[in-house]
Amino acid sequence: MSNLETFSKANLSRDLFAISLDSSLKTPLQAQLLEALRGLISMSPDLVGARLPASRTLASELSISRTTVQAVYDQMISEGYLVTRQGSGTYVASEITHLSQPHPIPRDADPTTHAWRPFQTGLPDQTLLPHRQWARHLERAWRSPTPELLARPDPLGWHPLRAAISDHLAAWRHLSCDPGQVVITSGAREAFEVVFHGLLGAGKRVAIEDPCWPKLHTILTDTGNSAHPVRIDQDGLDVPRLPIGAHATIVTPSRHYPTGVSLPLPRRVALLDWARQTGAMVIEDDYDSEFRYRGQPLPSLSGLDGLNNTIYLGSFSKLVSPALRIGYLVVPKHMLQNTRTYLDHVGARASLIPQPALATFMNSGEFAMHLRRMRRVYARRQNHLLSALAPVSNLLKLQPDSSGMHLCVELRTALSNRMTDVEISKRADERGLRISALSEQCVLPRKIQGLLLGYAAFEEDIISNAADRLATIIQPPC
Amino acid sequence: MSNLETFSKANLSRDLFAISLDSSLKTPLQAQLLEALRGLISMSPDLVGARLPASRTLASELSISRTTVQAVYDQMISEGYLVTRQGSGTYVASEITHLSQPHPIPRDADPTTHAWRPFQTGLPDQTLLPHRQWARHLERAWRSPTPELLARPDPLGWHPLRAAISDHLAAWRHLSCDPGQVVITSGAREAFEVVFHGLLGAGKRVAIEDPCWPKLHTILTDTGNSAHPVRIDQDGLDVPRLPIGAHATIVTPSRHYPTGVSLPLPRRVALLDWARQTGAMVIEDDYDSEFRYRGQPLPSLSGLDGLNNTIYLGSFSKLVSPALRIGYLVVPKHMLQNTRTYLDHVGARASLIPQPALATFMNSGEFAMHLRRMRRVYARRQNHLLSALAPVSNLLKLQPDSSGMHLCVELRTALSNRMTDVEISKRADERGLRISALSEQCVLPRKIQGLLLGYAAFEEDIISNAADRLATIIQPPC
Repeated sequence: MSNLETFSKANLSRDLFAISLDSSLKTPLQAQLLEALRGLISMSPDLVGARLPASRTLASELSISRTTVQAVYDQMISEGYLVTRQGSGTYVASEITHLSQPHPIPRDADPTTHAWRPFQTGLPDQTLLPHRQWARHLERAWRSPTPELLARPDPLGWHPLRAAISDHLAAWRHLSCDPGQVVITSGAREAFEVVFHGLLGAGKRVAIEDPCWPKLHTILTDTGNSAHPVRIDQDGLDVPRLPIGAHATIVTPSRHYPTGVSLPLPRRVALLDWARQTGAMVIEDDYDSEFRYRGQPLPSLSGLDGLNNTIYLGSFSKLVSPALRIGYLVVPKHMLQNTRTYLDHVGARASLIPQPALATFMNSGEFAMHLRRMRRVYARRQNHLLSALAPVSNLLKLQPDSSGMHLCVELRTALSNRMTDVEISKRADERGLRISALSEQCVLPRKIQGLLLGYAAFEEDIISNAADRLATIIQPPC
Repeated sequence: MSNLETFSKANLSRDLFAISLDSSLKTPLQAQLLEALRGLISMSPDLVGARLPASRTLASELSISRTTVQAVYDQMISEGYLVTRQGSGTYVASEITHLSQPHPIPRDADPTTHAWRPFQTGLPDQTLLPHRQWARHLERAWRSPTPELLARPDPLGWHPLRAAISDHLAAWRHLSCDPGQVVITSGAREAFEVVFHGLLGAGKRVAIEDPCWPKLHTILTDTGNSAHPVRIDQDGLDVPRLPIGAHATIVTPSRHYPTGVSLPLPRRVALLDWARQTGAMVIEDDYDSEFRYRGQPLPSLSGLDGLNNTIYLGSFSKLVSPALRIGYLVVPKHMLQNTRTYLDHVGARASLIPQPALATFMNSGEFAMHLRRMRRVYARRQNHLLSALAPVSNLLKLQPDSSGMHLCVELRTALSNRMTDVEISKRADERGLRISALSEQCVLPRKIQGLLLGYAAFEEDIISNAADRLATIIQPPC
């Protein structure tokens, strides 16, 4: 208590000494000081009970007469802002706090924030992040920031983070690139904006996989391009199906979203040949391939290409936390100048605050350790989900997936004859689950009926419970 | 040293125990473990010298035979990855660190980062931020984050930050609003995108001040709107000059950018009347009015309006640091639903990482204290700049400015007869200064000749030196 009081008192004095008064103004000094002191007190509820400096001290600090200060103190005592305590000075009154709050503000809860619901996809288990270590990286980066951190920021991002990402890609994705080719963004949407506004331009015909991440359609529309969906088969995108005259294609070769199919090497080679021959760009969206549980992952498509006709997109939303809002793209060297010109024009959007912390988190090895730990946890959760759903294996095509954070489960005929995936999704929603319908991620006819079941973010007992609820929804009435 | 070794050793064991092996694969377990261990070591330079777990322990953890583990250890010893020390076990060799770097990466310096140059405008003195306090807020927010911080984020921003901003606006800008009306953005550009993409739509005729912030033109073009510059006079924007049929106007009433003129009350009232009568929106860009050194600031225009026909834009780039990339807008209640729909569609871009720290920084009173301290420092620097330029007062119209972070100094005829402001800006650039020419911020004819001299971010001796350099540039040859 006495510490608190000293602290507040020190603040108040310092603030008072910082007041700017101007004798050349028409407003008398006394009125200026009165206004300033009133403002100070009504602005800072934490000043309640703080002692004011002696009038002599304040007068000397502000180079005004002591009479002026005393007159202001007196007036504010009469107004109830200040109180005197016999023999011990003048204090900020406790009754005036309500003046500082023109309207009551609820602080504790955000009415629009909601918990994540089971089977939500694309979500890591954020509770398992090594928060103490992460917070320490943040604190160390900013407690006495290097001059570089306070210098003119590069709109392409914090260089040591770009170097750490380049290392990570070499080690995990067999993608060799210079740190200078890595561009930090505020997420996938901005990455696509850089690609389409800054590098390829509008009016492009862009082939996309069908099914695909539904937002891709709106991103392409919003950037003034047209989307040309190409139905994938059991091996993913097939080059002969690409539309003639496409300027670019967006693919998820490591793990097709949402089905989880991995594009085999011959198709990758064919895709890169197609790009070279037609001059089209291949945009590789590599959103969670670090989470591979079995088998050797294929190198990234961009690594195979050597980043000539490919642009690589990555993100930390699934590897670390969506709170970061940090994604990145890796661009071919011949596109670097245009990338810089565009980002100089529109300005960076990614906050610099997490970037140095993320760089040291990666360089310390804690990031790789976290990924490996999550890989183990997520593998266990996938197994658990498969076991929990085993009782309804007559209705759902259950198969282990060698990677990823969700299962894409097709409906068997016994189920799809009775219900659509959209109906199941709707009923699941009513029961507190968040299940995306596979058919809603397709735009071409013959939509596949299936469910996307995110398991990464949920503990085993939640998964069991959610699987039970799903079973209740899809089981035939007795 | 021994602590470090224990730590690394602990990491290595933990990582090894997390390896996923799959006996159903064609690749033998031994080859899988070899590949995994090689990857682990070449990925983490900090593992050098770490001790490997005993082969018996690892075999038990991975449920494989001890012979397999020993065979892998032996092969890696022969490859030079590992070394044995007599009687004390197996260690990661120190010679292999170079293996982890497929290409040398410069880590220390970002070749494209530059120091800020004197007279740069719009820049706070970031070295004076209470970094330790700020870093502590970051650390406290994230060391064991509340469930709300890990829940589904509101695309409108972290609610306690929105509440803190609402408090700040009530106290400093006489703007009363609900926290729910405050929308966090990644900066001014995104704020304008929300306004034009999400609320007003494209194809709008937007009146802007002339001169103005040059990026406004490109933002309006990029969002599909047309800019209609209106020449300001000595009192700022005058309503009778607004173009007929304008759908919106963007103004800087507290402190016109770049001239520093404050819009008088009668003109504010007239502007709000115009908006009410025509149904147009007034967008108030209130970018640095917290830094007022003399006189009473007028309440914000949006406060006067009660946020009916006004949208308010603010930013922390100048008040705290551009590294945050945190700005905000305050929207009328009747526009909240559209704001949410738009942000649900495009997603949030502002990082969540700085938001809880900024909220507690503001609620603790440290933010207000920082602003008051900066106000005092910047006032002193402005005075210092005026004194330092006094020798060339026959060439420049020097006048104290009651607020802001830069002086807008018009050229006297004796100077403008010899040189344009653009020439001065160019020569200043060659001498390491960053002086914007006022005429380049105008698009209408009869451009005003003047210089923008940012002083906030620079210490007195740098200001003196820069003023001397400027004097050398503009003084007539002897």
